[in-house]
Amino acid sequence: MPLSEFDLIHRYFRDLTPARDDVLLGVGDDCALLDTAKDKALAITIDTLVEGRHFAPGVDAADLGHKALAVNLSDLAAMGADPAWVTLALTLPRADEPWLESFARGFGALAREHGVALVGGDTTRGPLSVTVQAHGFVVPGQALRRDGARPGDLVYVTGTLGDAGLALLVEQGLYTRPQHLGFLRRRLARPVPRIGAGKALRGLATAAIDISDGLASDLGHILDASGCGATLQLEQLPLSAAVREYVEETGDWNLPLSAGDDYELCITVPEARQGEVEAMGETLDCGLAWIGSIDRAPGLRCLREDGTTLDAAAGYDHFRGAG
Amino acid sequence: MPLSEFDLIHRYFRDLTPARDDVLLGVGDDCALLDTAKDKALAITIDTLVEGRHFAPGVDAADLGHKALAVNLSDLAAMGADPAWVTLALTLPRADEPWLESFARGFGALAREHGVALVGGDTTRGPLSVTVQAHGFVVPGQALRRDGARPGDLVYVTGTLGDAGLALLVEQGLYTRPQHLGFLRRRLARPVPRIGAGKALRGLATAAIDISDGLASDLGHILDASGCGATLQLEQLPLSAAVREYVEETGDWNLPLSAGDDYELCITVPEARQGEVEAMGETLDCGLAWIGSIDRAPGLRCLREDGTTLDAAAGYDHFRGAG
Repeated sequence: MPLSEFDLIHRYFRDLTPARDDVLLGVGDDCALLDTAKDKALAITIDTLVEGRHFAPGVDAADLGHKALAVNLSDLAAMGADPAWVTLALTLPRADEPWLESFARGFGALAREHGVALVGGDTTRGPLSVTVQAHGFVVPGQALRRDGARPGDLVYVTGTLGDAGLALLVEQGLYTRPQHLGFLRRRLARPVPRIGAGKALRGLATAAIDISDGLASDLGHILDASGCGATLQLEQLPLSAAVREYVEETGDWNLPLSAGDDYELCITVPEARQGEVEAMGETLDCGLAWIGSIDRAPGLRCLREDGTTLDAAAGYDHFRGAG
Repeated sequence: MPLSEFDLIHRYFRDLTPARDDVLLGVGDDCALLDTAKDKALAITIDTLVEGRHFAPGVDAADLGHKALAVNLSDLAAMGADPAWVTLALTLPRADEPWLESFARGFGALAREHGVALVGGDTTRGPLSVTVQAHGFVVPGQALRRDGARPGDLVYVTGTLGDAGLALLVEQGLYTRPQHLGFLRRRLARPVPRIGAGKALRGLATAAIDISDGLASDLGHILDASGCGATLQLEQLPLSAAVREYVEETGDWNLPLSAGDDYELCITVPEARQGEVEAMGETLDCGLAWIGSIDRAPGLRCLREDGTTLDAAAGYDHFRGAG
């Protein structure tokens, strides 16, 4: 059985390298927090996209440039950090100039949008893959970690869930609907890092994560790190028209629950601050929807309006099984 | 013709992202220098090793773990920086646990030796490649950049040159000598980042670079960045017994001049500080050898003791041709 990223890094690397006073938070969260001796910590995150695994061969290069940066900025957003710098390690089968120009265009446009400077990199020849490290700043006490959720906290998500997953089903020919195709493709190819939402949630959210592997799986990381469980109200999950139609037709709630690649934020907030967070949510273009609450009992429960329980939150169970 | 790393990054990314006041030195040197508002700058560098390109299929995993970290620490050394943190993005065809354990052992041993903490990472499935980003600190005014060499400066290198290149010739069956095999293999598989030398050269060297692509090519980067040329004295190049025998037999000076993967430092020092740098060099285990001087006239000249000139510094010419 393949090991999850979390396991691999923890099992082999956790105690191999020395502890340092200037590492405030190391492996195991969206970002590491490093004391650079000013009032803010440097938040860094690194992610690789591999052809055939994270994107299809022949994917549009500008989309890939955008996405490689977006998934890393999304990790900064989930930490509540202000993005500052990125590095780029690009492995390419050949120096295809039109491809590179297009890749750089997608990458650069998103970088400019967030005031992010490319400060280093490496280009090598080999099977196509893209590694980006993003660096940002956040006051250490305000950073949105995974381990702060408490029983009674409310659970929220930004945007809508399952769009990227549905786009993949369409790409694979497993679901055919002529409507919403452009919207779905954009959601898969051009994820929007929720930097503004992350910053607005500093000092308000008790925990946060970005949804790259699916809501159930990523909320599961918060539950594991915080030592608690959660109950979600299925009908409260924020869905686009496309995914709503899909769920109505198929009854498949696992798509919005467990499909990855949406890069929305899942956060927890103390119940006493419900008014405050919902007022803030109304200022966000992407929206912020209440979907459930944190419980003392471990595990993830998904309730329908009629009181029945969805049998298994497949993504979450799969993750636990792999752990 | 394949583009060099330098070209790719510069051509497509240089002006795409915004300039920032907190970027003291961006793309184009061994490290980027970022102001973290303490008395030291954060120095960062990222490098990828790809199977079949930077290492042979079936390479010892512990050697690979060591080397992936060493080549990045070598960039910090060339900046005069104190190493602090690393991140690791590892792409693997499968989760082979003995392989991973061995990789982590090689990586971790070198990290401990230099007090470096692994603070983040990503593991993905795909063709084998390893990307490491290293982070260190250096007082900005003391950082060893590429652009500070001046006519009249003396040129020095640490260690010995051409050992890794000769190891490759042996591996490929192009040179067969039973002696020195263990030494040569170690030089290729386990490069030693010259962190101590880099730190001792702060405030003394006018320019520095680590030799990953060969002396002629990497000294060429200093010459280009500094707007000058150099004359090297071939017989002064520091050679191991193995490479000395090879050169005596074959007359092939291009091996120590142009073969890569040695990860020694090449530095320049004002003539007035010759005594100081040579006294410092005697304290280094790896040694520090004078090999020539910086000239006003552009280009790289390689002189023999008998006054004749080596026809072409192939590595350097190749690099210029590729640029």
